[in-house]
Amino acid sequence: MGGLFGVASREDCMSDLFFGTDYHSHLGTRRGGLAAHEGERFNRYIHDISNAQFRSKFEEDIKRMRGRRGIGVISDFEDQPLIIGSHLGVYAIVTVGVIQNAESLVGQAFHKRTHYSEMSGGEINPTEIVATLINQEATFADGIERAQAVIEGSCSLLLLTEHGIYAARDRLGRTPLAIGRKDGSVAVASETCAFPNLGFEIDRHLGPGEVVLVTENGVELKKAPGERLQICAFLWVYYGYPASAYEGINVEATRYRCGAELARGDSVRVDFVAGIPDSGVAHAIGYANTAGIPYARPFVKYTPTWPRSFMPTEQRVRDLVASMKLIPIRDLIQDKKLLFAEDSIVRGTQLQDTIRRLFESGAYEVHMRPACPPLIFGCKYLNFSRSRSALDLAGRKAIKELEGRSDANLEQYSDSSSDKYCTMVDRIRSRLQLTSLRYQKLDDLVKAIGLPKCRLCTYCWDGAE
Amino acid sequence: MGGLFGVASREDCMSDLFFGTDYHSHLGTRRGGLAAHEGERFNRYIHDISNAQFRSKFEEDIKRMRGRRGIGVISDFEDQPLIIGSHLGVYAIVTVGVIQNAESLVGQAFHKRTHYSEMSGGEINPTEIVATLINQEATFADGIERAQAVIEGSCSLLLLTEHGIYAARDRLGRTPLAIGRKDGSVAVASETCAFPNLGFEIDRHLGPGEVVLVTENGVELKKAPGERLQICAFLWVYYGYPASAYEGINVEATRYRCGAELARGDSVRVDFVAGIPDSGVAHAIGYANTAGIPYARPFVKYTPTWPRSFMPTEQRVRDLVASMKLIPIRDLIQDKKLLFAEDSIVRGTQLQDTIRRLFESGAYEVHMRPACPPLIFGCKYLNFSRSRSALDLAGRKAIKELEGRSDANLEQYSDSSSDKYCTMVDRIRSRLQLTSLRYQKLDDLVKAIGLPKCRLCTYCWDGAE
Amino acid sequence: MGGLFGVASREDCMSDLFFGTDYHSHLGTRRGGLAAHEGERFNRYIHDISNAQFRSKFEEDIKRMRGRRGIGVISDFEDQPLIIGSHLGVYAIVTVGVIQNAESLVGQAFHKRTHYSEMSGGEINPTEIVATLINQEATFADGIERAQAVIEGSCSLLLLTEHGIYAARDRLGRTPLAIGRKDGSVAVASETCAFPNLGFEIDRHLGPGEVVLVTENGVELKKAPGERLQICAFLWVYYGYPASAYEGINVEATRYRCGAELARGDSVRVDFVAGIPDSGVAHAIGYANTAGIPYARPFVKYTPTWPRSFMPTEQRVRDLVASMKLIPIRDLIQDKKLLFAEDSIVRGTQLQDTIRRLFESGAYEVHMRPACPPLIFGCKYLNFSRSRSALDLAGRKAIKELEGRSDANLEQYSDSSSDKYCTMVDRIRSRLQLTSLRYQKLDDLVKAIGLPKCRLCTYCWDGAE
Amino acid sequence: MGGLFGVASREDCMSDLFFGTDYHSHLGTRRGGLAAHEGERFNRYIHDISNAQFRSKFEEDIKRMRGRRGIGVISDFEDQPLIIGSHLGVYAIVTVGVIQNAESLVGQAFHKRTHYSEMSGGEINPTEIVATLINQEATFADGIERAQAVIEGSCSLLLLTEHGIYAARDRLGRTPLAIGRKDGSVAVASETCAFPNLGFEIDRHLGPGEVVLVTENGVELKKAPGERLQICAFLWVYYGYPASAYEGINVEATRYRCGAELARGDSVRVDFVAGIPDSGVAHAIGYANTAGIPYARPFVKYTPTWPRSFMPTEQRVRDLVASMKLIPIRDLIQDKKLLFAEDSIVRGTQLQDTIRRLFESGAYEVHMRPACPPLIFGCKYLNFSRSRSALDLAGRKAIKELEGRSDANLEQYSDSSSDKYCTMVDRIRSRLQLTSLRYQKLDDLVKAIGLPKCRLCTYCWDGAE
Repeated sequence: MGGLFGVASREDCMSDLFFGTDYHSHLGTRRGGLAAHEGERFNRYIHDISNAQFRSKFEEDIKRMRGRRGIGVISDFEDQPLIIGSHLGVYAIVTVGVIQNAESLVGQAFHKRTHYSEMSGGEINPTEIVATLINQEATFADGIERAQAVIEGSCSLLLLTEHGIYAARDRLGRTPLAIGRKDGSVAVASETCAFPNLGFEIDRHLGPGEVVLVTENGVELKKAPGERLQICAFLWVYYGYPASAYEGINVEATRYRCGAELARGDSVRVDFVAGIPDSGVAHAIGYANTAGIPYARPFVKYTPTWPRSFMPTEQRVRDLVASMKLIPIRDLIQDKKLLFAEDSIVRGTQLQDTIRRLFESGAYEVHMRPACPPLIFGCKYLNFSRSRSALDLAGRKAIKELEGRSDANLEQYSDSSSDKYCTMVDRIRSRLQLTSLRYQKLDDLVKAIGLPKCRLCTYCWDGAE
Repeated sequence: MGGLFGVASREDCMSDLFFGTDYHSHLGTRRGGLAAHEGERFNRYIHDISNAQFRSKFEEDIKRMRGRRGIGVISDFEDQPLIIGSHLGVYAIVTVGVIQNAESLVGQAFHKRTHYSEMSGGEINPTEIVATLINQEATFADGIERAQAVIEGSCSLLLLTEHGIYAARDRLGRTPLAIGRKDGSVAVASETCAFPNLGFEIDRHLGPGEVVLVTENGVELKKAPGERLQICAFLWVYYGYPASAYEGINVEATRYRCGAELARGDSVRVDFVAGIPDSGVAHAIGYANTAGIPYARPFVKYTPTWPRSFMPTEQRVRDLVASMKLIPIRDLIQDKKLLFAEDSIVRGTQLQDTIRRLFESGAYEVHMRPACPPLIFGCKYLNFSRSRSALDLAGRKAIKELEGRSDANLEQYSDSSSDKYCTMVDRIRSRLQLTSLRYQKLDDLVKAIGLPKCRLCTYCWDGAE
Repeated sequence: MGGLFGVASREDCMSDLFFGTDYHSHLGTRRGGLAAHEGERFNRYIHDISNAQFRSKFEEDIKRMRGRRGIGVISDFEDQPLIIGSHLGVYAIVTVGVIQNAESLVGQAFHKRTHYSEMSGGEINPTEIVATLINQEATFADGIERAQAVIEGSCSLLLLTEHGIYAARDRLGRTPLAIGRKDGSVAVASETCAFPNLGFEIDRHLGPGEVVLVTENGVELKKAPGERLQICAFLWVYYGYPASAYEGINVEATRYRCGAELARGDSVRVDFVAGIPDSGVAHAIGYANTAGIPYARPFVKYTPTWPRSFMPTEQRVRDLVASMKLIPIRDLIQDKKLLFAEDSIVRGTQLQDTIRRLFESGAYEVHMRPACPPLIFGCKYLNFSRSRSALDLAGRKAIKELEGRSDANLEQYSDSSSDKYCTMVDRIRSRLQLTSLRYQKLDDLVKAIGLPKCRLCTYCWDGAE
Repeated sequence: MGGLFGVASREDCMSDLFFGTDYHSHLGTRRGGLAAHEGERFNRYIHDISNAQFRSKFEEDIKRMRGRRGIGVISDFEDQPLIIGSHLGVYAIVTVGVIQNAESLVGQAFHKRTHYSEMSGGEINPTEIVATLINQEATFADGIERAQAVIEGSCSLLLLTEHGIYAARDRLGRTPLAIGRKDGSVAVASETCAFPNLGFEIDRHLGPGEVVLVTENGVELKKAPGERLQICAFLWVYYGYPASAYEGINVEATRYRCGAELARGDSVRVDFVAGIPDSGVAHAIGYANTAGIPYARPFVKYTPTWPRSFMPTEQRVRDLVASMKLIPIRDLIQDKKLLFAEDSIVRGTQLQDTIRRLFESGAYEVHMRPACPPLIFGCKYLNFSRSRSALDLAGRKAIKELEGRSDANLEQYSDSSSDKYCTMVDRIRSRLQLTSLRYQKLDDLVKAIGLPKCRLCTYCWDGAE
């Protein structure tokens, strides 16, 4: 998915740039990058973070960096930031989002003899496409507006120029951007969890399509926000860090409410409520607190050496990592009835393995409670590495088994009051060998978040565009 | 403190050696080492793990290692394993423990013209001292028995020889050692959390002073266990990994019972129960479940890049790490009454900082509930890096303030029914600016563990030897 | 300066690509790069080689590279190869040369809303400028021709496309390019020293401005060579590797002839003839052989650990390296009359230090014989890192001391029969504290090379354009 | 073989320690090590230098090292320096040489219950054996004397103690040690080429078996030198660096004399005299100067990236390195009669390949002139990695072919006036496909060195003990 961080300060702010970007590490696993403006020069560093943490890769670089303004990025795919020379001047650019119509935009550019040089494996760097769009206009603000108008998908971005940092949230606000302030500094971040430990207070959340120019002296409005908001509801369910907030709504607390909603309608009797680490933990806490059932940790993560989900390229290594990271505690499993909360079920392959290990460790019953409805539609608005193909989704596979094809009656399957929905859920439950499986209802999820449904993107669950 | 792992197998077992040792990473921060026996040769690798995880340091080595027997160590201090040439043959050795009378033992060795070559900074490697003691006898078993007889402190060890792996638990069983089995392989480990994901079942826990020879074919008794057991109670409170068990008693479950004991006598009214991450979490869960008060996570650890407590040499960096690792969630703190469980209070400096940050984030009340009594005596039986000096202990500092000297009336201060105890606790509470502070009572801790008090070492709390 | 290597083969040719590029390492100290075409993909690797050898940086990459066509570069400045997406398709590009009119070309490109993304420190990558020029036309051949037509300076290049490798020598042939062949493979290289150990025979040298398409099946002419040749004479004097040949003329043999020419007119009586390592060695051998004076090595390079002239950024470290790399042999220096050959005198600072050390080691006389005339004009046709500024040249400094300004009467100072020339040379001799100093005459240098003067660029010595 | 360097100074001397040890890099390819005494502590660093230069491995360490005394080592085999704790106090030790009777010495030590802990692959570290011998006595001087008395083979060593650096040359002076001085510092080195660039002047060469205590204030005699000297003649022929001197006799100049001796009796008519790089170059210069035949470089080493003979473990890689490192210059080879000087012929396998490549490049004749007689006996006094087994020597192989066994009539084969000698040489010539082969005569080699034959070890040529 990716995350952005920028900071402008009256003093050297490279330390804030480093830590602020680092606090977005949960949003991407492939590339990290920093760019700063020092005197007349732009300094940039990009590293592969697929096998090492952002901090270990950049800690030598940051010692050499100087400057009072900088931008950083954690990226799931391409190299960023790019340093672009153009008729607007030199600037650095980082983006988050997905360009659905990249091919058509590139074709138009080739027609004008524009080239792309940030290629890897023959693929054009999407951030360079954004830059070429911005360069078509006479000012940065116009260029950004044009880029956001023609891009289908979404694109939030930061531009480091000699005048300050342009920050733009994507047209429908699918991804967040927030402004933080402290004495002498202004920051902009995808995740507000980057703020408290650096001393920033949340100033405000940018609106959909809003463009501002951030300097150490403040925030200048370049384009007012639009009316329509379609922020991704999955940010609260899974992607966001517990300490972050979007539209003023904290993630951790939302997850407790998700768990509480799950518990409210539930009458299952179990010994312990637990969360699949780490994604289901907060949902489980909310459930346990509401249900009055003891919360426990039958699986513990071996954090000293399995800190995060590095993405080894080999599936074999990936499976190994998955199975070594969590250690079962037989005393909390054997002969026990266990209820697990999880954020969601994507393909379900890893979950299946976890459930099998629980039964092998002697579990008597295993109940699963995903904090959101079944995923039916593949996202076309954000750049997720997590769910590769819509057809691999546990829901879609069940539909294919039931209907003979995977794209039949999707609307009915996304309606939790339908028979087809119940059949699909039972099929998933049966494949995962669960004692019981109850998904969150979409209305309950929306209630837990607290925004009107029309301001949330719920496409992956109900196909609403 | 350090941890040991050994494995003997009918097949190549280097993968088990690697992961088994890795699962002891929580017990040490300075050195890791592996040794294997391949054909006629001993291969050994030692790395500094103070700035990187065990796995990242050894993953290249393990690809080159071959063998059907091997031992590994995570060490808080010295380089290990040592490969020793002696009249008994060549062997590899790893140890855990502390030698109080090292100076005297070295003097005797020098008298016999023995030398020590594993020096670092002029200090003799304690494991080499153990080796020289073993070498004084005609057999490994006699040598180990001699070493354990003359060492004051404690010494559990593994010896990799051409006949198999000698495993010896220290004379009074202060540190644990357990045997695991699976088809074709036998393992020995300090922490049983190393077993489940490698397919080992716990076979049994070695008794105090017991010596065995482990081969792929089984476990041969070389010296029967002694009567007296003095296992360190702190293993359950703090050092052990949640998934481990000692004397058949699981750590995580014990911590829930600790929290439950704390809750039972408590009448404070709070909004949330929380744990200081990660050490206080299980205690807090036990408290919340028992008290029926919602459990929450007002602080979250930024695990993607702050995976573990590396020990930077500079205090400045250490403080930085401490303050950056935990992110406060204002929504769960502001105007809230919070009760925090923690494993123990050692010096209290970092805790003080955490409490200050809670109040800065708007906490209304902060109550602290350590899962064990105040630490009054410095450990002389194990090799802890955690508490440097007894005089730095929060309890001893309070005593010094009250008495003018830090070693006065220690027994009275360790009696929770005494006035002096209450005064001391209030002094600590006041220094930490806590709303309330209630330590676990020793009897309740002993009850939570479930062994008779006489089989536990409780020296650091009550001075009982 | 930089060097290029490309290869097309019926089999995988990555090993040839690796070693062939490696054999250009003497031409650049900053960046190395490789690109190969595998299936539909372009793989590219670029590394900083300023602190490590090309081979050590790329040996891991090359194991992962596959392909039957590839190009490589050793570059003194910018990152290369670039992978460019354009209306012509995707291609990789490497260049050698200098673009004098970069600013004007960039201005024109900005006018068309073209951008540059390969920036470092705010400077546009010259190879990207070349690419944007090529992209203006409808075919690669036309694009290359256009680029060479509008670039002032020089530009030799290789383009890796899906049809083969376009190789183009700069318009006036200032830098060389040669074709090599072996069974099933065709290669193109700046330096023919890359050929023999890979089994290639020199096929032919490309003519000035010639453009060809190289495939495994042969070489297709895309643009015939021009009439006028202005190949850099300095290639034979200093830049080229001894085993290379340009226009069919070997470097080492030419240097022997340079030394022979120096010896012919010389009547100085010395004990030993020596070369400043490594640049003066071949010239010295030619001198000693012709003069019948013993050749010796009063300075030896400590090659085991000072393999090449890495360019540390700090002048302090640079001076240290210079002084530690050469070890004087007092037995061959003390009370001796020594004649040193050197390729040329650029600024003379390091040479001054070397001479001082010779006298400190007891030398009785030190005579210097540069293999080319005094450098008077700064090169404007190639991209040298060696001589930073024309005004720093030893000759120009002497002229400034004599005339009060550094740009007066340059023509007279470049005429070795003039009084001004003699005065300048004596001023340099005196500053370097040499017993005698005699430069090669330009006619003798031209004779040693063996091409007509009109086909050589001698601008740096006589200002002839 | 290995080399030692030590320095004591009134100021911090870590830079001298670093560079002084680095200047011994030509003597070993496996391990490098440094130890310094700082305050009460010994700091030590050891690195594997088989794939990287000493300097690159130690440059980070040296920044952290402080001290006014230190020792360093380049070692072909074992880890060094060792830091030894003993009844004599703590000390660091480095050694050069070979212990023929190691097994017997170890047996005696085991009998006394002494152990060895510096094992690698089950082999005892010879330097630790030396340390245990030293520890048997009441003083360092007595201990060193005892060690040298009981060791069969040779052992030169440096001991860094809190009183200064003990330096001891082996009993018969087979390996050299020299003292250097500059203001405020005293150094001791195997190779005097370490001195000039650090500002040291050669003070004197230690005599055979001499033991001294080196401090910043001077050199205190601890044991006077013995009468008998048996310095290895091969040091001048091959091992020593050109800028070094032993017994006051410079290496480079000796090699010129070797070449001159070869030329004197030679009547072959050739176009060029050349040296096999780098080992034969100085011999060739001496030959060419004396014979009045042009010296040339038909092979040039590609020094920019093949700096030194790293010893890759795989023979395949080794052959590759050998063939890629030297580039033939066809212009200097084709149709030419070439005479090559070489230091010696060991196994001849690589030389055979070089000769083959010369003929492939069109050479008309290739004549070989080794600077020393045929090697017949394997060295038993020093620790050479170069010649693995006596039976692999080109001479011994020829003898085996002629006699049916490799150990027959060795004395006759080492007598250059015998028929057997001539037959053997012709057999070698024929195997190498040389036009002619003439070895140096032993008397001429001795004359070139300039010491009486009785003071040189010539065992490998004539078996004289």
